[in-house]
Amino acid sequence: MVIDPEALLSAARGGNRRALARLVTLVEDDAAGARRILARADQDAGTAYVTGVTGAPGVGKSTLTDGIVEQARSSGPVAVIAVDPSSPFTGGAVLGDRVRMGRHTEADDVYIRSMASRGALGGVASATPRAVELLDGLGFREIIIETVGVGQAEVDVVAAADTTVVVVTPGWGDGVQAAKAGLLEVADVFVVNKADREGAAATVADLQQMIALGAGREWEPPIVTTVARDGTGLAELWSAVETHRRHLGEEGLAAKRTMRRIEIFERAAAEQFAAHARATVGAARYDEIAADVRSRRLDPWTAADVLIAELRPQ
Amino acid sequence: MVIDPEALLSAARGGNRRALARLVTLVEDDAAGARRILARADQDAGTAYVTGVTGAPGVGKSTLTDGIVEQARSSGPVAVIAVDPSSPFTGGAVLGDRVRMGRHTEADDVYIRSMASRGALGGVASATPRAVELLDGLGFREIIIETVGVGQAEVDVVAAADTTVVVVTPGWGDGVQAAKAGLLEVADVFVVNKADREGAAATVADLQQMIALGAGREWEPPIVTTVARDGTGLAELWSAVETHRRHLGEEGLAAKRTMRRIEIFERAAAEQFAAHARATVGAARYDEIAADVRSRRLDPWTAADVLIAELRPQ
Repeated sequence: MVIDPEALLSAARGGNRRALARLVTLVEDDAAGARRILARADQDAGTAYVTGVTGAPGVGKSTLTDGIVEQARSSGPVAVIAVDPSSPFTGGAVLGDRVRMGRHTEADDVYIRSMASRGALGGVASATPRAVELLDGLGFREIIIETVGVGQAEVDVVAAADTTVVVVTPGWGDGVQAAKAGLLEVADVFVVNKADREGAAATVADLQQMIALGAGREWEPPIVTTVARDGTGLAELWSAVETHRRHLGEEGLAAKRTMRRIEIFERAAAEQFAAHARATVGAARYDEIAADVRSRRLDPWTAADVLIAELRPQ
Repeated sequence: MVIDPEALLSAARGGNRRALARLVTLVEDDAAGARRILARADQDAGTAYVTGVTGAPGVGKSTLTDGIVEQARSSGPVAVIAVDPSSPFTGGAVLGDRVRMGRHTEADDVYIRSMASRGALGGVASATPRAVELLDGLGFREIIIETVGVGQAEVDVVAAADTTVVVVTPGWGDGVQAAKAGLLEVADVFVVNKADREGAAATVADLQQMIALGAGREWEPPIVTTVARDGTGLAELWSAVETHRRHLGEEGLAAKRTMRRIEIFERAAAEQFAAHARATVGAARYDEIAADVRSRRLDPWTAADVLIAELRPQ
């Protein structure tokens, strides 16, 4: 099938949701034509604001994201990328999430994409930045990435956002100092959701103490209490995100975006490396080195050194 | 500090746990000296049997792994690599897990390693195979990798095991067909843990039906019911793992190990790619391409193409 990127892109820009979904699928899968689409979208990209929302299963991320979408819409079209955990284990919850977010799915200015992270070439860590770039180029001013903060790839994805919102619930992490230190590294804004439950005040106090330990940092993450279910605190949460945005400023934002671009560049190059190596040393020689690894004549690390050495111009 | 791999390796082989821990840390971090350690360990590796245990948080993986260790000890020294989710969210549970597995930590023939997946260079996906290779070379006959089956990297790691045990609990995944299909792909053995709870029989029936849908596969995953807490079913579980092992046979096992080696080789080469590219095109030219990405003169994908093209011998 011939893909005409320009036609798809202009249809998507004109509000054609089918064209948009097709583009995102092509880009996620890194399918034939994806590079041309991305190169074209990139020309118009560079203005979207990326907010990451992460937290353990069950903290109410999706309801919260739903509320954030409602707040963010005032700034322009909003896209949500919900990274489904690769594992099938949480499939039920994920399908449920999408159902719960249903009230936005028909709105013209909100696009919700549930990204399966397994099976796609390159996985979530490389597929998400591509989707962000595409949606940015298509004019979405606000992009929200929602991930379950458990897997490494998923945390890395959300940590690359302009503002990262970390969601916990009352009673979370009592007495686990190491875990708290890790949280502090990632969070720009803390949310204690389900704050109508017992223990909310103690969790806030606990987070405050932890933040105080890291005092002297350039940005001190605020703590917002929410009850996402009934909308309590969502305006305050969005206001905290916007405060962090102003703190970053034009310079900080530009630095974040540049870092993301360089990471995409290096990843794209590394992904093309095997084909390049095979073409350069020759398929026969490449297979010979691989055969030496298989037969245990070479360990894999020494074999990688051999391959790299043979790639260098003589 | 000068690292003498031979001295560390022979101390570790002699039962020195401090030397062993130091080696694993070096290899996990891909520190200076790690390659020499691995190249040396590789000469003695190739006989360990790798069992992966994965499941959602709360299914009782650690208690189950603890029981598996008890069973596996009869085959020789056992190493457990517990991949902590990169995220701090489950930190409490993970610390708890290690505490709960305490009864084995003092045994000479059992080594338990809790691997932090963030911060380490290359992450869990590349650090775990290195640790497996090292422990294999040090004489551990049974290696058990325990991961929370949520993140992509974590599922990939466990899916590379010789036998993958997928743990669920009664009531899991009612009616989520897509999730079940995904499970079937990964599992060599199913465990319904906490089988003394209501709904266990229904969950077993559900899994059976799902397995029947995939009938005609070469290996039909058995379903074992356990109550890990009191040891019920653990002998049957280990017996199911051993049955799968026999099913794989020498040839199947060799194929799995070869696949793992080739993956390590390709990953190691890709990890060295950036340094190679910089050296080949020259630091100045590499920085120029990166600057074009930063300034948006080039999109990251086209820039990767440019870099790869300039690497080719003229």
